[in-house]
Amino acid sequence: MLNYKAYCLDLDGTVYRGKTPIKEAVDFVHYLQSNGIEPFFVTNNSSMTQKQLQEKIAKMDIHVEVDHIISSSIAAANYIEEHFPKKSVFMIGEIGLQDALAAKQVVRTEAIADVVVMGIDRAINYEKLSTACLSIRAGAAFISTNSDHAFPDERGLVPGNGAFTKLVEYSTGVEPIYMGKPEAFMLEFIQEKYGYKKEEMIMIGDNYSTDILTGIHMGIHTAHVNSGVNRTEEVQMKLSQPTYCLESLHDWIK
Amino acid sequence: MLNYKAYCLDLDGTVYRGKTPIKEAVDFVHYLQSNGIEPFFVTNNSSMTQKQLQEKIAKMDIHVEVDHIISSSIAAANYIEEHFPKKSVFMIGEIGLQDALAAKQVVRTEAIADVVVMGIDRAINYEKLSTACLSIRAGAAFISTNSDHAFPDERGLVPGNGAFTKLVEYSTGVEPIYMGKPEAFMLEFIQEKYGYKKEEMIMIGDNYSTDILTGIHMGIHTAHVNSGVNRTEEVQMKLSQPTYCLESLHDWIK
Repeated sequence: MLNYKAYCLDLDGTVYRGKTPIKEAVDFVHYLQSNGIEPFFVTNNSSMTQKQLQEKIAKMDIHVEVDHIISSSIAAANYIEEHFPKKSVFMIGEIGLQDALAAKQVVRTEAIADVVVMGIDRAINYEKLSTACLSIRAGAAFISTNSDHAFPDERGLVPGNGAFTKLVEYSTGVEPIYMGKPEAFMLEFIQEKYGYKKEEMIMIGDNYSTDILTGIHMGIHTAHVNSGVNRTEEVQMKLSQPTYCLESLHDWIK
Repeated sequence: MLNYKAYCLDLDGTVYRGKTPIKEAVDFVHYLQSNGIEPFFVTNNSSMTQKQLQEKIAKMDIHVEVDHIISSSIAAANYIEEHFPKKSVFMIGEIGLQDALAAKQVVRTEAIADVVVMGIDRAINYEKLSTACLSIRAGAAFISTNSDHAFPDERGLVPGNGAFTKLVEYSTGVEPIYMGKPEAFMLEFIQEKYGYKKEEMIMIGDNYSTDILTGIHMGIHTAHVNSGVNRTEEVQMKLSQPTYCLESLHDWIK
């Protein structure tokens, strides 16, 4: 058994692929829990609530408290609470972001705001994008949940929140602060809330440029699993290496 | 009287500001016409039809044939007719682009297409942007009317077609071909259709990075007017200078 206290797992590509669980990860979570350790789940997904994510992985036989599921929407709501208390917020996003802001009693407006926060919004329209641009041109802080270029739906790779954020950045000339991986906000939140030391934490994921870099940026150990976006051989070409390269999380069930 | 045969005037900032005519430009057009010269109007605006633009300037007492009004939508339709005959086209855009494509009997589809063409579309939605991205990822040619970051509406500077194009570029990793200024397609179209020599043509406008650079890219003479985006002093700082810097087009009415 390894000595970490906070195992932070990516979801898509690490714990599941779309709707299909990755058995080795499910087994690893059970193994941790049987040893009294409750892992964390760290996802750039801003569209789903903690409860929806909890229910999704429960169907895959992973049963965890909602507090152990950290999304880029949760990070955004925490960031706004800390840095912009009582400021008016214009949101572009879905239920996941909406719910996270509401839980922090964030004051939302549909007019020109002090803060613009963007997550994926499949009900996007010209009016919303205009209000975001006008607010930012008037000086609003500009926060985005994540910089993902695209994500898969049933038709193929459709535009991600990073693409919509880029639209607003290009139009206004103002760069956003991103909350999701590869930024370390979600890991910092876990560290601060539960008081872990950095050497007690590890970030585990399939995607080098999000998961592994997040851990590296945070200064904690990292483990790459060969179950998703990047193959082990690709990762081994990188200048900054993860602490571990695993074929699967079965490698750690001893 | 100058010796050019094709006077190509920008519209917004040169002939009018929003709904207000610029008197010196109106006088100059009348002066040209009284000398038997019909000027051309060259605009990045893709949302209005030639007829709508004709009617708009008619209210300002400028009366010209529709054929002398060239928009980025007209350039896009010409380009598609020439390079992609009989190919299926997915369009994001408004009446100006729609009308220009229809005039060339372009075959439009709402499904995955061979060609994606984007102009400003204030009825934009996620579905349209997804179809554009999916088509381009499947190999479609990617054409955009113009790269404008923003344009003014009654509320301020709202996102332009360049920002939406950037979204699709960022998501797919594929760069578009732009039809509008500072690319020279619109001027090339005038040259080819009417058989002008380059030394017979001049591009006149207020915006250095669109109007003046278009003329420079085309290899024709250019005149900057001090009535819009860039002041004369700014233009005089540029490495590539316009042929003339005018305070207004009254300078040329002799």
